[in-house]
Amino acid sequence: MLPIIETIPLRQMASGDILSLQVYKFTGVNTGKKVYIQSNLHGAEIAGNAVIYQLVEFLLTVDATDLVGEIWLVPVCNPMGTNERAHNFASGRYCVYEAKDWNRIFWDYEKEADDLTAFAKSQFPLNIEVVRQNYLTIIKKEFAKLLEKINCSSCVPYTQKFRYILQSLSLDADYLIDLHSSSNQGLNYLYYFYNREESAKLFWLDFGILLNEYDGDAFDEAFIKPWLALEKCLQQLGRDIQFEIEAWTLELGTGMQIIPDAVMEGVRGVKNYLISKGVLRNTGLLLEEQKNRKMFFKNRSDVRKYYAPAGGMIQSRIKLGSLVKTGDRIYQIICFNKSGNLPKVIDIFAEVDGLVYDTSINQSVNEGEFVIGII
Amino acid sequence: MLPIIETIPLRQMASGDILSLQVYKFTGVNTGKKVYIQSNLHGAEIAGNAVIYQLVEFLLTVDATDLVGEIWLVPVCNPMGTNERAHNFASGRYCVYEAKDWNRIFWDYEKEADDLTAFAKSQFPLNIEVVRQNYLTIIKKEFAKLLEKINCSSCVPYTQKFRYILQSLSLDADYLIDLHSSSNQGLNYLYYFYNREESAKLFWLDFGILLNEYDGDAFDEAFIKPWLALEKCLQQLGRDIQFEIEAWTLELGTGMQIIPDAVMEGVRGVKNYLISKGVLRNTGLLLEEQKNRKMFFKNRSDVRKYYAPAGGMIQSRIKLGSLVKTGDRIYQIICFNKSGNLPKVIDIFAEVDGLVYDTSINQSVNEGEFVIGII
Amino acid sequence: MLPIIETIPLRQMASGDILSLQVYKFTGVNTGKKVYIQSNLHGAEIAGNAVIYQLVEFLLTVDATDLVGEIWLVPVCNPMGTNERAHNFASGRYCVYEAKDWNRIFWDYEKEADDLTAFAKSQFPLNIEVVRQNYLTIIKKEFAKLLEKINCSSCVPYTQKFRYILQSLSLDADYLIDLHSSSNQGLNYLYYFYNREESAKLFWLDFGILLNEYDGDAFDEAFIKPWLALEKCLQQLGRDIQFEIEAWTLELGTGMQIIPDAVMEGVRGVKNYLISKGVLRNTGLLLEEQKNRKMFFKNRSDVRKYYAPAGGMIQSRIKLGSLVKTGDRIYQIICFNKSGNLPKVIDIFAEVDGLVYDTSINQSVNEGEFVIGII
Amino acid sequence: MLPIIETIPLRQMASGDILSLQVYKFTGVNTGKKVYIQSNLHGAEIAGNAVIYQLVEFLLTVDATDLVGEIWLVPVCNPMGTNERAHNFASGRYCVYEAKDWNRIFWDYEKEADDLTAFAKSQFPLNIEVVRQNYLTIIKKEFAKLLEKINCSSCVPYTQKFRYILQSLSLDADYLIDLHSSSNQGLNYLYYFYNREESAKLFWLDFGILLNEYDGDAFDEAFIKPWLALEKCLQQLGRDIQFEIEAWTLELGTGMQIIPDAVMEGVRGVKNYLISKGVLRNTGLLLEEQKNRKMFFKNRSDVRKYYAPAGGMIQSRIKLGSLVKTGDRIYQIICFNKSGNLPKVIDIFAEVDGLVYDTSINQSVNEGEFVIGII
Repeated sequence: MLPIIETIPLRQMASGDILSLQVYKFTGVNTGKKVYIQSNLHGAEIAGNAVIYQLVEFLLTVDATDLVGEIWLVPVCNPMGTNERAHNFASGRYCVYEAKDWNRIFWDYEKEADDLTAFAKSQFPLNIEVVRQNYLTIIKKEFAKLLEKINCSSCVPYTQKFRYILQSLSLDADYLIDLHSSSNQGLNYLYYFYNREESAKLFWLDFGILLNEYDGDAFDEAFIKPWLALEKCLQQLGRDIQFEIEAWTLELGTGMQIIPDAVMEGVRGVKNYLISKGVLRNTGLLLEEQKNRKMFFKNRSDVRKYYAPAGGMIQSRIKLGSLVKTGDRIYQIICFNKSGNLPKVIDIFAEVDGLVYDTSINQSVNEGEFVIGII
Repeated sequence: MLPIIETIPLRQMASGDILSLQVYKFTGVNTGKKVYIQSNLHGAEIAGNAVIYQLVEFLLTVDATDLVGEIWLVPVCNPMGTNERAHNFASGRYCVYEAKDWNRIFWDYEKEADDLTAFAKSQFPLNIEVVRQNYLTIIKKEFAKLLEKINCSSCVPYTQKFRYILQSLSLDADYLIDLHSSSNQGLNYLYYFYNREESAKLFWLDFGILLNEYDGDAFDEAFIKPWLALEKCLQQLGRDIQFEIEAWTLELGTGMQIIPDAVMEGVRGVKNYLISKGVLRNTGLLLEEQKNRKMFFKNRSDVRKYYAPAGGMIQSRIKLGSLVKTGDRIYQIICFNKSGNLPKVIDIFAEVDGLVYDTSINQSVNEGEFVIGII
Repeated sequence: MLPIIETIPLRQMASGDILSLQVYKFTGVNTGKKVYIQSNLHGAEIAGNAVIYQLVEFLLTVDATDLVGEIWLVPVCNPMGTNERAHNFASGRYCVYEAKDWNRIFWDYEKEADDLTAFAKSQFPLNIEVVRQNYLTIIKKEFAKLLEKINCSSCVPYTQKFRYILQSLSLDADYLIDLHSSSNQGLNYLYYFYNREESAKLFWLDFGILLNEYDGDAFDEAFIKPWLALEKCLQQLGRDIQFEIEAWTLELGTGMQIIPDAVMEGVRGVKNYLISKGVLRNTGLLLEEQKNRKMFFKNRSDVRKYYAPAGGMIQSRIKLGSLVKTGDRIYQIICFNKSGNLPKVIDIFAEVDGLVYDTSINQSVNEGEFVIGII
Repeated sequence: MLPIIETIPLRQMASGDILSLQVYKFTGVNTGKKVYIQSNLHGAEIAGNAVIYQLVEFLLTVDATDLVGEIWLVPVCNPMGTNERAHNFASGRYCVYEAKDWNRIFWDYEKEADDLTAFAKSQFPLNIEVVRQNYLTIIKKEFAKLLEKINCSSCVPYTQKFRYILQSLSLDADYLIDLHSSSNQGLNYLYYFYNREESAKLFWLDFGILLNEYDGDAFDEAFIKPWLALEKCLQQLGRDIQFEIEAWTLELGTGMQIIPDAVMEGVRGVKNYLISKGVLRNTGLLLEEQKNRKMFFKNRSDVRKYYAPAGGMIQSRIKLGSLVKTGDRIYQIICFNKSGNLPKVIDIFAEVDGLVYDTSINQSVNEGEFVIGII
């Protein structure tokens, strides 16, 4: 099966050059779910590009009759982030001009949905699929206003044009997968949303973090929050409903690196998810026995991040993937001074038990810089 | 009168060097208001440093009997911002590590004050000065919790330590003045808050912008919002009260520059404000006749910012300080391309009437970059 | 007359997007000189783009019979530099990845021409035009080796590919004009080379600086140095010869700005140069009477740059374009400290007489940053 | 033995804060050689700080009678580099303001020594130690002129003040050790100079690279080149002489990291070098048997660096430390496009045999970025 390949102009630079997106659209013979997969929203988080490359290669071998619905893939989905450098480092986590995290800029309908209860009441007796269509229609109508603003004489800051284009591709998806990694050094895991634990297991990753707290305006959040809000609203009215709408952020290892194991887990997870969801059929892939597979779940609010209480050099840091106990020494700082004294070493201890899931890529710290994340 | 000069360690860098703040505290013989003045919170906005230098020089000539209360001055209040460079440019508007605007990081008690109505009710019959002290006590108590977090093993990101130190100096001030300028090219004006128009006029600037909308967590906002909230709450309960607490952000011209006229207006404004408020006496300064002075007021929500709808070079832009009418051409973009065509010029027109109060320092634009601000 | 417009792929970015150059080639009916004009090699130096835009507009109105030879124009000739930002500043003076000044990367045949004396001897009796062709053939042959290296498996750093493309367009030009400005705040003037003073006057600028000292590997230098070297070599052998080959760098005002007066002087200068050289005919432009025009010439080695001896804020700086005498105060630094003392003001005095031709755009200085340039 | 600790002001920042160096000077009871050791000249290259920390700890345990001569240690020797960040990355390889590599700025007397042959002739019959003193006196006299320039009204760019201070500490050393690492991912090895192979072995590292080609103005080069030049000059006059002056750059692993093994090798190497040179005695350290130790030597000119011929994502790269054969595939690029085509994978092959000693930390490449270094 060959994809339709669409190239979408994204930004005209001062030099007249144009940066674009390219979408690979695989469409099955039978209609079904729309799956949207992107990678590299943060410049340093590149492993997902290799995952998408392998998924494209794989889908080329799949027969169109075995794809139910459609799969859209957008690798290198943020050229401004991907191409940015500071010396040899991939510094593209933030929009340099606006100082915004590229993954905290998205349009979240929930924030505008003042009359959600009224809407929920009006939809109360309707079939879930009709509710879904009605709600999506409203979301799309509000979303269209963003384009009006873009087309004004006063226009909008780039991040607002960028979000418009990415979200216009994914707004009507059923399943949305955003492939990230740590911008530092991280494990393979995923972020998931309320009530989606069972689906989370389909990715066969070791653990998942529930976004029980939001950062605000992240790509996955902005997509699913309006649906979760409507579910909650209907539930409060007495109707238990769950839309077959899911959003996932997969974290695949370490920044600036394409770790083979992380790529393998990403590809395996996405394939298994798509097969389990019935999007792909007869792939010849044997689904591994999952019943005995253990997945470990935690809440975002359980994360404890450690910042350096002094400037200096980090050493003897506990390894990524370790389990720590409260009171364990988790790292040291060699602390230099300019006041005529000998350098000294400071010990830092764990405040809570947990798993080391993220460590700073840089072992030199100014006071207040990130060192280690434990969950 | 000589000041007490206090040096406060702010951040230990990886190299062991320490960046500090220095506070110049002038204290009068008679107790009275506390005035807090800082400058250069954004790295490129340096004019206020010259204003504070002249204020220090001036206060050295003032007799301690003529100062009622105290004046604290903190020039170059953000060394991380002041010292940062990108090539020869003063790029210190944002914390590079955290990608946060240095003026959107402050602790705002209002956001934590869940029980404000209860508190207001409890204070309803009390004398305003007692209410002020009671409220300040509560604010300080909550604020102290920030220090506990700083002293934890997990510590905090630098912006949270930085805000703690700046706010610990200013939390109990009566009058707070934050000296800024445009990071681009701007006029001289001030930002003020609800119900403080009369005091605004004391600065003798040409115009003022009411912060009827908040950006969130700015230094001036974080200081005064809790008081405005309490005022509003008491008003809703039926008591009309206004605390003699004021916060001002003065905008003094253009980024990276110390324009003599902007410095003069800053110094003149602050002096006149302090004399009019009774903080300074017998200064020998003749207060100019203000009755005929016109000050022009606008709302923040009236600001219309124009962003480039295409990449290219800006030319024929209408000058800073001009009045424009809807439909006037306000700038052009010379638009180059890489598609084999001749370059072309695009005209951009004003969407509303207004005053050009801010223009981009850079006339080269990538699509979606700021060009002109009109109010 | 319409140009041939050629688009040349320059660099594939990590995202797959391609940055390109676009050349506007106006070719006359009659053969003659080749003129090569580019702009914006340094990201902040944008005035030349407006000059080229106006030249293109003008040449569209010229009849092909009135152009003798050809004119190639390359605006925004360095997309990497043009599009780079640090916050709102145009920080593109250097290749961030390699930390190289975009105008100190060019290939200079003179550095490889070990046997120039032997070649000069061999050409001694030949006609100047034949010598020119023979020498150019050798230069091109050596230059072609750069492409071999680019096409190797090990390839080359980007600056070496970039220089190859720009120089392949201009290597065989007769007249080369590189449109710059200050990256700070500068006057309008030009840089010229040995023995080209008379031609320099054709640009009608107020002053010119002879490159009697080289920075090394600048675009203009790399183009003309081999020819100057051959001229010198032949002269030493007893033959006085001057090739009709010229290179010019025009400095048109201030960084990040398109000052109308600078653009006007740039357009006027280039037009007059082309008419005077016989490249353009019957343009209907009246050449102003130049005989009484005074142009002021200085040597590059006469430049005295002043760097801040202390950190702080620059004020009272003498204005761009002023004449100073030895011992004049040229600027002050407001010098803050973190050692418990009052701030102080330091006066800086001129070491030599001269003209203030360049001043720092930023009036905040860390110790050792540039403040003022005098010639 | 306790060191004398000297703190040296280095730079006053715009904020008034001062960055300093701190030198730990251990002085033996008996006079002897002066050893100068510094670390972290490049911001990301931090392993040497841990080495110096351990050396300080070790020297505190050594008796002053067991140190013959003196050892000066300067950790975090470049605060501007150490403290700089781009997002979370240690981007301090270059002076951002001047776009200069912090290790290509040093003063090299050889470049000014026009009359070296005359000097060599005058010293021909003298005792080597007298020659050393005479030459050092001349070098110091020329070096002192740098200070005159620094103290002028026009002052100097910061890199010139910085080099002055670092070199004033080390100019009269006998042994100079500069502790670096890769700014990317590198092996442990050292750079050495002509005729110093036997001493190189004292560091017990696996391999060494002879600087048979110079980058220009590096710290080690600038220190030793004048002595090598004098040696060569005397040799040409017929006197074979070698000064007991040595300069070393140790490369200890990967940027932004403090790899325990790299630190161990650094500490062990320096200790063994100092013991073998007789600077340290009776340390209780058993020197390992070196006779059977193999050290592998290569020339700098044998280095082959590979740059990406296309933009994209690097995968399947051969591992650091591998031996490759000509024609081996050394890495792949996943190459995306914006022209409507499927992504593709490009194979890159080795041009020569060799050892992979350096690999890019970032596996995302814009065209022309560094990927792999083979020697």
